Amino acid sequence: MNSYIYATIAGVLALIFAFVLGSAISKEEVGTDRMKEIAGYIHEGAMAFLGREYKALSIFIVIVFLLIGFLLAWETAICFVVGAIFSILAGYFGMVVATKANVRTANAARNGQSKALEIAFSGGAVMGMSVVGLGIVGLSVLYLVFGGNTNFITGFGLGASSIALFARVGGGIYTKAADVGADLVGKVEAGIPEDDPRNPAVIADNVGDNVGDVAGMGADLFESYVGFIISALTLGALFTGTVSIEKGAVVFPMLLSAVGIVASIIGILIARKSKSSNPQKALNTGTTISGVLVIIVAFVLSNYVFGNLKAFAAITAGLVVGMLIGKITEMYTSDEYKSVKKIGMQSETGAATTIISGLAVGMYSTVLPIILIGIGVLVSFFVMGGATEVPHGLYGIALAAVGMLSTTGITVAVDAYGPIADNAGGIAEMSGLPHEVREITDKLDSVGNTTAAIGKGFAIGSAALTALGLFASYAQAVGLKGIDLLNPVTLTGLLVGAMLPFLFGALTMESVGKAANEMIEEVRRQFKTIPGIMEGKGKPDYKKCVDISTGAALKEMLLPGILAIVVPLLIGLLLGAEALGGLIGGAVATGVLMAIFMANSGGAWDNAKKYIEGGAHGGKGSDAHKAAVVGDTVGDPFKDTSGPAMNILIKLMTIVSLVFAPVIVKFGGVLLNLFK
Amino acid sequence: MNSYIYATIAGVLALIFAFVLGSAISKEEVGTDRMKEIAGYIHEGAMAFLGREYKALSIFIVIVFLLIGFLLAWETAICFVVGAIFSILAGYFGMVVATKANVRTANAARNGQSKALEIAFSGGAVMGMSVVGLGIVGLSVLYLVFGGNTNFITGFGLGASSIALFARVGGGIYTKAADVGADLVGKVEAGIPEDDPRNPAVIADNVGDNVGDVAGMGADLFESYVGFIISALTLGALFTGTVSIEKGAVVFPMLLSAVGIVASIIGILIARKSKSSNPQKALNTGTTISGVLVIIVAFVLSNYVFGNLKAFAAITAGLVVGMLIGKITEMYTSDEYKSVKKIGMQSETGAATTIISGLAVGMYSTVLPIILIGIGVLVSFFVMGGATEVPHGLYGIALAAVGMLSTTGITVAVDAYGPIADNAGGIAEMSGLPHEVREITDKLDSVGNTTAAIGKGFAIGSAALTALGLFASYAQAVGLKGIDLLNPVTLTGLLVGAMLPFLFGALTMESVGKAANEMIEEVRRQFKTIPGIMEGKGKPDYKKCVDISTGAALKEMLLPGILAIVVPLLIGLLLGAEALGGLIGGAVATGVLMAIFMANSGGAWDNAKKYIEGGAHGGKGSDAHKAAVVGDTVGDPFKDTSGPAMNILIKLMTIVSLVFAPVIVKFGGVLLNLFK
Repeated sequence: MNSYIYATIAGVLALIFAFVLGSAISKEEVGTDRMKEIAGYIHEGAMAFLGREYKALSIFIVIVFLLIGFLLAWETAICFVVGAIFSILAGYFGMVVATKANVRTANAARNGQSKALEIAFSGGAVMGMSVVGLGIVGLSVLYLVFGGNTNFITGFGLGASSIALFARVGGGIYTKAADVGADLVGKVEAGIPEDDPRNPAVIADNVGDNVGDVAGMGADLFESYVGFIISALTLGALFTGTVSIEKGAVVFPMLLSAVGIVASIIGILIARKSKSSNPQKALNTGTTISGVLVIIVAFVLSNYVFGNLKAFAAITAGLVVGMLIGKITEMYTSDEYKSVKKIGMQSETGAATTIISGLAVGMYSTVLPIILIGIGVLVSFFVMGGATEVPHGLYGIALAAVGMLSTTGITVAVDAYGPIADNAGGIAEMSGLPHEVREITDKLDSVGNTTAAIGKGFAIGSAALTALGLFASYAQAVGLKGIDLLNPVTLTGLLVGAMLPFLFGALTMESVGKAANEMIEEVRRQFKTIPGIMEGKGKPDYKKCVDISTGAALKEMLLPGILAIVVPLLIGLLLGAEALGGLIGGAVATGVLMAIFMANSGGAWDNAKKYIEGGAHGGKGSDAHKAAVVGDTVGDPFKDTSGPAMNILIKLMTIVSLVFAPVIVKFGGVLLNLFK
Repeated sequence: MNSYIYATIAGVLALIFAFVLGSAISKEEVGTDRMKEIAGYIHEGAMAFLGREYKALSIFIVIVFLLIGFLLAWETAICFVVGAIFSILAGYFGMVVATKANVRTANAARNGQSKALEIAFSGGAVMGMSVVGLGIVGLSVLYLVFGGNTNFITGFGLGASSIALFARVGGGIYTKAADVGADLVGKVEAGIPEDDPRNPAVIADNVGDNVGDVAGMGADLFESYVGFIISALTLGALFTGTVSIEKGAVVFPMLLSAVGIVASIIGILIARKSKSSNPQKALNTGTTISGVLVIIVAFVLSNYVFGNLKAFAAITAGLVVGMLIGKITEMYTSDEYKSVKKIGMQSETGAATTIISGLAVGMYSTVLPIILIGIGVLVSFFVMGGATEVPHGLYGIALAAVGMLSTTGITVAVDAYGPIADNAGGIAEMSGLPHEVREITDKLDSVGNTTAAIGKGFAIGSAALTALGLFASYAQAVGLKGIDLLNPVTLTGLLVGAMLPFLFGALTMESVGKAANEMIEEVRRQFKTIPGIMEGKGKPDYKKCVDISTGAALKEMLLPGILAIVVPLLIGLLLGAEALGGLIGGAVATGVLMAIFMANSGGAWDNAKKYIEGGAHGGKGSDAHKAAVVGDTVGDPFKDTSGPAMNILIKLMTIVSLVFAPVIVKFGGVLLNLFK
């Protein structure tokens, strides 16, 4: 019981800290009237999108609530609703603060870098603290209320995952449609610079940064955070053969998460108050201190709870693997290494060679992370005693994910800080602030990237491990002793599962294409029909562009989201529990691969373009630059829409299977019965 | 015994038929001196490549021969060498005749279409008959010599598969390096038309069509043909619990293959002699008649051998699934359907949207084929009695592949006919023949495409089914009762296996990029340094370009080929037989997906470009056309190098595991033992 109270306290602490930081941001100066006006547009557009998104999702939530209630248990249905609402809140809090912090960061940058860094990072920290605070409070309170029954708690995970998928896909489509539309017509056709207020899509573009990179990412990381704890809890409960909440295996992940929150708060305070003139160093110091604190406490706790260091070893394995994946991600996507330079060189022979080499880089970049994930799985499995001891080695795999995600608080803060600084730059530009302001915000934006790469490594690695952990729980829940690949029914499931990330990638990329086309036509129309728009006299209709992005995002997010929920159920009902197991295995395998491939191809193209813009291969305006822009545009939906949604997709499908396991057991396999 | 003699007779018949057709082609008129000269260059370049390729491969063959001999059995080693040599012969025969048929087709086209069709199709038929003749004679003779021991026979499959991979990858790199080099410098930079004799890379480009599309494809289909028979034989022997060669389950696939050969010969004769003015109809009629004949005989044989129609049902399931996959392939890649038209439309907004929509089309196009393969697997499994009856349902899956591949003779003929007609067009252009000649060859080339799409469907579907059949044999050979996905060791294997096609795709695409760059620089150099080259007075150094393609192809084919053999062994030795099972499962899943995705994206881009060249969206020279050319160039390595090699990759890895099963059983899992 005590450990859950500690966890709740840590969560409440995080929420209070978020509130304090948020209030402090509100008190900062907003700046000129023009800045207020621009920030107002962005805030308004973002809120309008969230409002309409949440309205659409509420219908979905009610339907699934009733479905779970009638088919399974009302307790699970309640947990589902709480999970969904908490996920929405995490995104909402983050966005409200981000749309306040952006303009204030821009204003602070007028007087130098230090204060601007503090505000932007505080904005990110509010998001980080909201995510972990809501996650752990929700989980531990529900856990206590429902007497430690992990079956009910999985509903919380389902709520978090399904909202995350919608938010990620919707936000990703929104931001990329606006981005591509603003760039292709504004920058390329009309020849006006980025973030120019004459461009009708410019507000939509800046709103997109908030709904995609802040709210979408918030919901995404909320589901990761919740997912890994549920995975560790269910496996812990499973393999100690009890649901008693005082058993070590169930206590340990909860306690460690609580410690992770405290460690994140300490790290954030240190990073925020760092008087270092080097913002990169400030962020790194904060992140490192949090990580070291968690490792030290894990050492002590492992000994205290289990009487040995096995859990500590599993946690450390996860942490090391996550950091290495982050480092590898950086090697394939940063212009300081040869892959990006090679793409830059290939840009000299045109767009086709740019695309081919970028795709090759993305495919290559899957190799080492997959091998590392494999090593992480094996090490954490066998140090916990493999298949023979209690708690089971599978629990070790869940702990490896705990190692990666316990410091989520600070990694989210670093992640969310980037878009805030980016937005501040946009506001500076649109408000006509001096060029130096933009330089400061650009610098702040760029330093976040390296630290964020490690966060990405954690996200990818933990998604795979969490999905595997939930997969094991699923097998237990449907009573499968094994999932045999030699059984053609399982193999069929595997093939279909492996195909789903391809379908998902196709759907989301096409959605971006469609939405971008609508946006392109609207921007062209405004340039043509609004008199004096190019001279800065006619006022562009920002709202129309915001509406287009909003409408397209809401329309296009539905199908992929619903597919992710319906297909696992359909396969389970038609072909039975083992085929569904195969489906999850296949989906996890290609989902992780596609996530890495798409994210890194996109990242590499992006930085190859920036590398050329920095002066290489003829610099801006050269033929090589034009080719690199093509690469970057292809990479946009790769890295910001389809790629990041893959991680959620695989976890959502796994957790759908886990939650609906009783239904699968009862009714599954109708098609197979026909054959018999 | 008798069935094997029938099979041998059918095989010898096929070889005689190939010889007769080949001699008839040789007797046709070659044409003008200029045509002789050009054809001579192409023939010489092709032979030079094959010579150097076979020399490189002979070292590989000797090493593997000794390895198998010492580690396993000398009988297996002998089968391996015979398989490798027969594979080489199949490619060699096909190419010798193709390089004769091309110039004679061009010459015949000067007097109209009918004779030209006959020669080109006869050339393809020689290839088809060589593939099936060598395949079945090799298998049945070795089978008789080694007393029906399927363990030894798998060596034949290993020989065929490994040579196929090298030939496909090497040929694919050769042809695309030459193609991209010739296009980018000749067409785009210098502005001279395709197949212009002033272009130094033009001969290499035409040689490439032969070594890639003819010799490479020949070795590829030889391994498919051999693979499915071995899969059916080993499973048949396994599940009837005997290696006696008179048992029905072993007799049936052999007899049906023999019937398939005869049916193909009849189909070829009908198509060749068709006096129809519509070449499309002639090819379709021949293919349909062959298919119908096989189905009729399968009905009779199923009843005769097994006393029921189960085997007939499994065969029909395979045939139907293969044809449907072919139809779907056509729907995603032909400009008569909406996908290609959509890519054409997206070309209007530039190269980036062309690429995004092409990638989306390729990803979408995986959905239905995967579902169909799943249905094929389940139907053929359950119709043969599932896991409970003898012969086992897995044997039914192998029979479904038999259904797809029994008419390989005529499908190869149709496939190989295309490049011959294409080459004839190149010769016509380079020899300065009248424009009407080129029009006839272009028409002949284009009509092959639709029929070839069905062949592609068979290739993809059968690759998956054959791999699954061999996979089951592997499990039996290493004594695994099941391959459990819940075991983290298996899961690790699955993840690594799923990653391999991505690595393979990256390696092969990068190789094409590197080789193309070398070629581009050489062509540029010649344009600059050879006086009078652009006026047609200075003679381009064709040989230098041929050398570059040859050298690059040989150098770059080694690493992917060796990886495909070494990685399965490595995983088996380190992590044991079950991890290797997971590896194969993962590789088959993503391999099939990547094969479909890459082939169809590439095909769709190719036809979108042709669609625009046909006048849509501004036609040749428009901005949309330029964007479509970028798509086509990205698609080239997709559809002609990386994509087709995936099918061979998954079968090669499976058969490596099967052949080396005794080694894995004895020494496998050293790393796991450390943990214990």
